[in-house]
Amino acid sequence: MKIRVLKHELNESIQHVAKAISSRTTIPILTGIKLEVNFQGMTLTASDTDISIQAFIPAEDNEKKIVQVERPGSVVLPAKFFVEIIKKLPSQEVEMEVKEGFQTMIRSGSTDIQMVGMDPEEFPVLPNIEENQVISIPGDLLKNMVKQTVFSISSNETSPILTGVLWNLSDDQFKFVATDRHRLACRTAKLDDADGVRFSNIVISGKTLNELSKIIPEQNTRVDIVVADNQVLFKIDRVLFYTRILDGTYPDTSKIIPTNYKTELVLDTKKLSDSIDRAYLLSREEKTNIVRLQTLEDGTIEISSSSSELGKVTEQLEVSQFTGDALRISFNSKYMLDVLKVVESEQLRICFTGAMSPIIIKPMDDSQSLYLILPYRTTN
Amino acid sequence: MKIRVLKHELNESIQHVAKAISSRTTIPILTGIKLEVNFQGMTLTASDTDISIQAFIPAEDNEKKIVQVERPGSVVLPAKFFVEIIKKLPSQEVEMEVKEGFQTMIRSGSTDIQMVGMDPEEFPVLPNIEENQVISIPGDLLKNMVKQTVFSISSNETSPILTGVLWNLSDDQFKFVATDRHRLACRTAKLDDADGVRFSNIVISGKTLNELSKIIPEQNTRVDIVVADNQVLFKIDRVLFYTRILDGTYPDTSKIIPTNYKTELVLDTKKLSDSIDRAYLLSREEKTNIVRLQTLEDGTIEISSSSSELGKVTEQLEVSQFTGDALRISFNSKYMLDVLKVVESEQLRICFTGAMSPIIIKPMDDSQSLYLILPYRTTN
Repeated sequence: MKIRVLKHELNESIQHVAKAISSRTTIPILTGIKLEVNFQGMTLTASDTDISIQAFIPAEDNEKKIVQVERPGSVVLPAKFFVEIIKKLPSQEVEMEVKEGFQTMIRSGSTDIQMVGMDPEEFPVLPNIEENQVISIPGDLLKNMVKQTVFSISSNETSPILTGVLWNLSDDQFKFVATDRHRLACRTAKLDDADGVRFSNIVISGKTLNELSKIIPEQNTRVDIVVADNQVLFKIDRVLFYTRILDGTYPDTSKIIPTNYKTELVLDTKKLSDSIDRAYLLSREEKTNIVRLQTLEDGTIEISSSSSELGKVTEQLEVSQFTGDALRISFNSKYMLDVLKVVESEQLRICFTGAMSPIIIKPMDDSQSLYLILPYRTTN
Repeated sequence: MKIRVLKHELNESIQHVAKAISSRTTIPILTGIKLEVNFQGMTLTASDTDISIQAFIPAEDNEKKIVQVERPGSVVLPAKFFVEIIKKLPSQEVEMEVKEGFQTMIRSGSTDIQMVGMDPEEFPVLPNIEENQVISIPGDLLKNMVKQTVFSISSNETSPILTGVLWNLSDDQFKFVATDRHRLACRTAKLDDADGVRFSNIVISGKTLNELSKIIPEQNTRVDIVVADNQVLFKIDRVLFYTRILDGTYPDTSKIIPTNYKTELVLDTKKLSDSIDRAYLLSREEKTNIVRLQTLEDGTIEISSSSSELGKVTEQLEVSQFTGDALRISFNSKYMLDVLKVVESEQLRICFTGAMSPIIIKPMDDSQSLYLILPYRTTN
C-alpha cells in the first residue's frame, strides 16, 4: 500500500471510526484501525465486537483529488497513537507506505513516522447484512429520539436488556422505549419512508446510541437503518455503523402506564425546572434527591425539600391549569430534572393517579412523548 | 441581621471567597462562609486555615444601592449549598434574615429557604497584618509571573517547601523561582513602586497562587501585596486574600544554572513545540516521555522518540542560529512542552553544556525568564 491523502479528510474519517475503539479490549488486533486501499479510495474500520464503524474516503470527490493511490493494500495501525498523531501532522498532505512486515512509513512535511503495523488478515470481518428491512429517517429526528429516551436506561449491568432502548415499528410508527424500572421514557415518530417495514423487540444498547448520535452531523442528513437478524446497520453518508441487537425479551411496559388520572396540572416547563433544580440542590445533600410536590388551596403548587443538616427549600409555583383532586407526592428530583431537560415544549402536563401511582409527564405541543416516574413512598 | 442585597453582587463575592473552602476540612465551621453586616455593607469570609479570603460588598456603589441594611448582624452559612442556591435564585433581589439559633431565612421571588446557620463567634479571626512591607504590582503581570513559574513546582508533599514558589525582592527586582529538582523556572520583573522594600525566602504554595490568579480580573487592576512575618496579604479591589508563608528554607538554586555553554541554538518556538508534541505522543506510550534532540551535519536538528511497540517519530527542524559543538541529548518532553507553553516570545534560545548538563531555555525577546531542564542519562 502506498498513497498520498489529504490530512483533513483522513482525520475526519479516523475520528468517526475511533468511536468504536474500546480502551478495555483484550484482543490486540482490536486496538487498531484497519486501512484498506483500492483505486476507488480508502476504507477505515474499527470494532470492539459490539459495534463496528467503517468510513470510506473516495479517491476523488467533486473533482477534488483526496486519495492518490500508487499501490493498493491494507494494514492495521495502533489506534490511539494513529488518531492523535495524524491530527497533529504539520502538512495538509500525508504520505503513507506499508513495507515488509506491515512496517508503515508516514510522512508529512519534515515529520517522519515509522509505525508498527499489524496483519489486516487478523482483523474480524464485518457481518454481511441482508438489506431486506430498510428504513430511512432524518438524522436530527433520530438524534432527538435517542436524546429523549436514552437517559432512562438502566446503568445496572445485571439486567442487560434494560441498558438498551427498545425499538418497535408498525404502521409507520417508530417507537423508542427506555426504562430502568423506576422511570420510563417513550417517544414515537411517524416515518414517511417505512414502506410497510415492521419490527418489534429490537433492543439497542443506550451507550451505542449515544456514540451513534455523535457521528450524525447537525446538518440535514438522512440515516438509513437496516434491521437484520441480530444486527442493525446505520448508514450515515460515507459511514457505516454496525451494532448487535441485545439478547433477551424487553419487559412489557404498556401496563404500568395509567390511563385514568385523578389530578392533572399544566405548568411552565422552565419555571418548574428551575424550582425543582433549587429543591434538588438541597435534597442532593441528603443523597436521596427526594422532593415533594403539593397542591395548595389557592390553586398553586408547592415544591419543597428538606435536610436536617442544611435546612429547607420551599417554592411556590403558578399553575396554568389544575383539574382534579388535591395531591401530595414525593419523587426523585434528579429523575424529574432529566425529563425536564429534554422536553422542548414551553408547557407540559403532569398527571397523577394518587401518591403511590406513577407520575406521567407529557409535553403540551407534542403527543409523541411520554415520561413516567415512580413516586417515593414516604410517610410524611 | 436582616438585609436585602442584589443577587449579582452577592453571587460574585460568594464565588470569590468560596475558593478558600476546602472539601476535605474536618473543622465544621470551616465548611461555612461567614457573613457580617453593618451599615457600611456586607463582609464575606471563608478560610481553610492555609488561605483565607474576604470580600466586601459596599451598601452603596456609585449611588447604586447594593445592600439595604435593616438590622446588622452576622452568621456562618453552609458554603456548598449557599454557593449554589444563591446563583440559582429566581429574582434579582435577595432578602436575608437571621433568626433565633442562627436559623437563616432567604427569600427571592417565590422561593423560600430556611438555612441552618452556625455561630459566627466560632469562626477563626483573620490575622492582623502589619502593613510595613507593601508593594504594588499590575494584576496581569502578577498572573503572568505565576503562570510562567508555577508549573515547575514539586507535586511531592514529602518536600513541602518545593510545592511553593520562592519570592525574592531586592533593588526593585521581584523574582519568582520554582523547582521540583528535575526542572526550574525563574521569572524576574522590575517593580516601579517597590519603595525600597526588600525581602527574601518568601515561599508561597503554588496551589494558592493558582487560586489567587483566578481572582485577579483580566482588566487593569493593581494588586497590593503586604508581606508580614508568616503571612502574605493580597489586596485585589474589594477582595483580601491571606495566605501563610511556607515554613523552611528554599534550596539555593543559583549554582545549578550553568554560565558557560558549549552549544547554543535559536529556534522558532511554535515549530519546536509542534515537533516535540508529536515526539511526545509516542514517548508518552512508553511512560518515559523521553525525546532525543540531535544536531545534524547540515546545520538542522533532529527531534526523535521511539517505542518498541509502536514505532518511531523523527522530526527535522530548521535552526535560526547554531553556535558551538554538535550535540545529542535526551530529556523529558513533557517538561519541555510545559516550558514552551508559557514562552510568549516567537523565538527562543536553548543552551547546552553537554549531554549530562542542564538544558537552559530563554525566550529571545525577554531577558527576564529562564527555564532549566535536567537531561536524561541514556546510553544510546
